[in-house]
Amino acid sequence: MAIAKFVLVNAKIKLSILENTPDFSSILHHIAKHITLTEPEKELFISMLRLKKVKRKQLIEQPGFVSTHRTYVVEGAFRAYLVSPDGQEHTLSLAVDDGMIGDPGSFLLQEPATLFVEAIEASTIIQWSYENEQLLLEKIPQFSLAMMRRAQQIAVTIQRRVIAQLSLSAEERYDEFAQNHPLLLQRIPLYIIASYLGMSREFLSKIRKQKTTLKK
Amino acid sequence: MAIAKFVLVNAKIKLSILENTPDFSSILHHIAKHITLTEPEKELFISMLRLKKVKRKQLIEQPGFVSTHRTYVVEGAFRAYLVSPDGQEHTLSLAVDDGMIGDPGSFLLQEPATLFVEAIEASTIIQWSYENEQLLLEKIPQFSLAMMRRAQQIAVTIQRRVIAQLSLSAEERYDEFAQNHPLLLQRIPLYIIASYLGMSREFLSKIRKQKTTLKK
Repeated sequence: MAIAKFVLVNAKIKLSILENTPDFSSILHHIAKHITLTEPEKELFISMLRLKKVKRKQLIEQPGFVSTHRTYVVEGAFRAYLVSPDGQEHTLSLAVDDGMIGDPGSFLLQEPATLFVEAIEASTIIQWSYENEQLLLEKIPQFSLAMMRRAQQIAVTIQRRVIAQLSLSAEERYDEFAQNHPLLLQRIPLYIIASYLGMSREFLSKIRKQKTTLKK
Repeated sequence: MAIAKFVLVNAKIKLSILENTPDFSSILHHIAKHITLTEPEKELFISMLRLKKVKRKQLIEQPGFVSTHRTYVVEGAFRAYLVSPDGQEHTLSLAVDDGMIGDPGSFLLQEPATLFVEAIEASTIIQWSYENEQLLLEKIPQFSLAMMRRAQQIAVTIQRRVIAQLSLSAEERYDEFAQNHPLLLQRIPLYIIASYLGMSREFLSKIRKQKTTLKK
């Protein structure tokens, strides 16, 4: 694949790990929406978590390197994108507070990533490693149920995106996005939303201008 | 969505259920690749399965109707496709012997499907219902692990397809498909493979002709 031609630099991703009294309440709350962990299970899970600070524009994953961690966004904004051989950026997924982001294929198969995962804002994330996830799946049966629901949801989201690209006009795609993701619309820069929706920034601006005029 | 405009006919899908000594060995073998079921778990699972015959061109799912069953293909060939507002068919997934097929979003969220799922050959399938799957997830912890791995694999497959569409040429997409899915290449008609790869039938024929000429 053409993507493998990227120069492999900046291999070691330096993230500042917060040492003092990490607050894992947000991810525990997130997990509690899906499953109920016992106290020992909760302790096991917490022992595997690392709270980290990421600067704006920092890459937490990049093509050519295996994705070694799951990333939960406590606070901040991220995008996962691909650079096609013609140099164009294509945004494949977005995440803000309480979301998750990564290169799912790279993590699942433990093979080199094809996506860049970049912080759009200065962010706080919680990560756990691939090895620890295998341990969680083994030790906490309910964990696999929660991860199954998540994986199914991701499959549905990606499939819907493919379907929208094939069957909706650019304006309909924008409307659907605005309706389903009002938070992302507020937080993510327009040029990234345009890239996610598969249209140029200029075209998205035109659509938005038309809508504002119609409302007046 | 424009897809909802389809006339909703043929609502009750009539499939002939095979009554005599159904053979579930293929799906048990399929499951055993991922998880080991105890005898009582195996019995519970088998009690939920239905073996069915499907004729060529028969639809087992269609837009507007909720996907009520998981479908495992014992023998045969299926495709899931979308008809875009301009009348074009876009193939989103393919399955032959020992594969699974369906509209994942419709099944997961129990809302109307957007895809047609059609038998490309006369086929034998095994199905279980949405309600029974919930029961399996509750009663057999390992089952959710197997379904999680499957869902993750689907997410990865769909994402790779999106990435290939964005970053590979038509010829590279064909090469990748031929390498990864030699069985599908043999079994699925060319016009459907062209639709899966996002190119015209004529263009795919041209690519294949060039390759044959090169080999001589």
